[in-house]
Amino acid sequence: MQTPKALFFDVFGTLVDWRTSIAREAEAILRPLGHSLDWLAFADAWRGEYQPAMEDIRSGRLAFCKLDVLHRRNLERILPRFNVAGLSEDVMRHLNLAWHRLDAWPDSAPSLARLKRKCLIAPVSNGNISLMVDRARRNNFPWDAILGSEIAGDFKPKPRVYLAACAAFDLPPSECMMVAAHSNDLASAAKNGLRTGHIARPNEHGPGRGETMPTVPVDAAGVDLEDLVGKLGL
Amino acid sequence: MQTPKALFFDVFGTLVDWRTSIAREAEAILRPLGHSLDWLAFADAWRGEYQPAMEDIRSGRLAFCKLDVLHRRNLERILPRFNVAGLSEDVMRHLNLAWHRLDAWPDSAPSLARLKRKCLIAPVSNGNISLMVDRARRNNFPWDAILGSEIAGDFKPKPRVYLAACAAFDLPPSECMMVAAHSNDLASAAKNGLRTGHIARPNEHGPGRGETMPTVPVDAAGVDLEDLVGKLGL
Repeated sequence: MQTPKALFFDVFGTLVDWRTSIAREAEAILRPLGHSLDWLAFADAWRGEYQPAMEDIRSGRLAFCKLDVLHRRNLERILPRFNVAGLSEDVMRHLNLAWHRLDAWPDSAPSLARLKRKCLIAPVSNGNISLMVDRARRNNFPWDAILGSEIAGDFKPKPRVYLAACAAFDLPPSECMMVAAHSNDLASAAKNGLRTGHIARPNEHGPGRGETMPTVPVDAAGVDLEDLVGKLGL
Repeated sequence: MQTPKALFFDVFGTLVDWRTSIAREAEAILRPLGHSLDWLAFADAWRGEYQPAMEDIRSGRLAFCKLDVLHRRNLERILPRFNVAGLSEDVMRHLNLAWHRLDAWPDSAPSLARLKRKCLIAPVSNGNISLMVDRARRNNFPWDAILGSEIAGDFKPKPRVYLAACAAFDLPPSECMMVAAHSNDLASAAKNGLRTGHIARPNEHGPGRGETMPTVPVDAAGVDLEDLVGKLGL
């Protein structure tokens, strides 16, 4: 396989551990206010609203908006389930931006630095630009550019998101590879002509609850990003 | 003055020396093909078509396209003036991408690295994303994100370009500063609520042919970017 000229990355779950990071952030903000809840269940519930919220936009029922806006709507939806009410606007805002403060899996940043010597690298995430920037600063992700939903005006797995990323780099899809820990993301990327690389994140949704193997055909697969980079000869 | 949270940069002329770089690239490509022309005049002529070409889009006469496309149209327009004809498609493409291979003024990269420790930094240029990425790689510009015309779908000094950049970073214009060596760029940024920083690039259009001082009110001005950074206390 010829070396891809650009590597595009899913970020939530693939490069960062959203579940324990959101649980930690929620606890740090809400416990001092007297709330005590199952923090990991709270993270799972918040993330559980993610796909349905985007579906309203992918289907055309609602106009495109930043993921931060959807996260806020989802937060307001789940707080009552955990009997949390009456948070101030400042607290709500800070809590909502917890998604900007996620920590990377340990191999993410070193592997990206290594890849950048050979290829263009960019997130092709459903997160908005400011969210990607904050996350890059926190975790030393050395992106060439922030691509993804906000430049495409739609959410993955809609074709436009992958194709807008290729177009931004002036590359045909066949010279780009989408890297993700989620087979549905890679299935759509492949259908749109991109090459695909899967990485296992076996603990994404809790211990043993993440994809260890792709469920669709891919061009390469690794047990983590470091392994995938090695297999690509990069 | 409060420290801006984000600094936005004009790039052509402000951070990079387009004139001598384009002259050098054109000579490197065309001289081996037997062409001999006034290379600096060629650079000036190509750049001279820049504003009129964008005006077709700013005015709504033509739909938005990447600056690379306008550069190609402009190149085809000026080549006959220099009696250059019959270039192959490969040569035309390589020559057109000379704008991706411009060298920075010496103070640009070190000052951006210093600024990045305190503020978000992004180009807000009329150049497209791939052009900005190539230029960043060549010159070590450590951007947080590539903003500007391609995410706004229009060209400066249209308000939308400045405002789309502020919106991408979730910041009100008053917390952002536009930095440029061109007073007309800063005048529009100021009109749209951004703060403004001018830097002198006295040789942009040739020795002694560049702005040494702003011709409009600005919040800060420096003899180069290093000087401006110092004056901002950053």
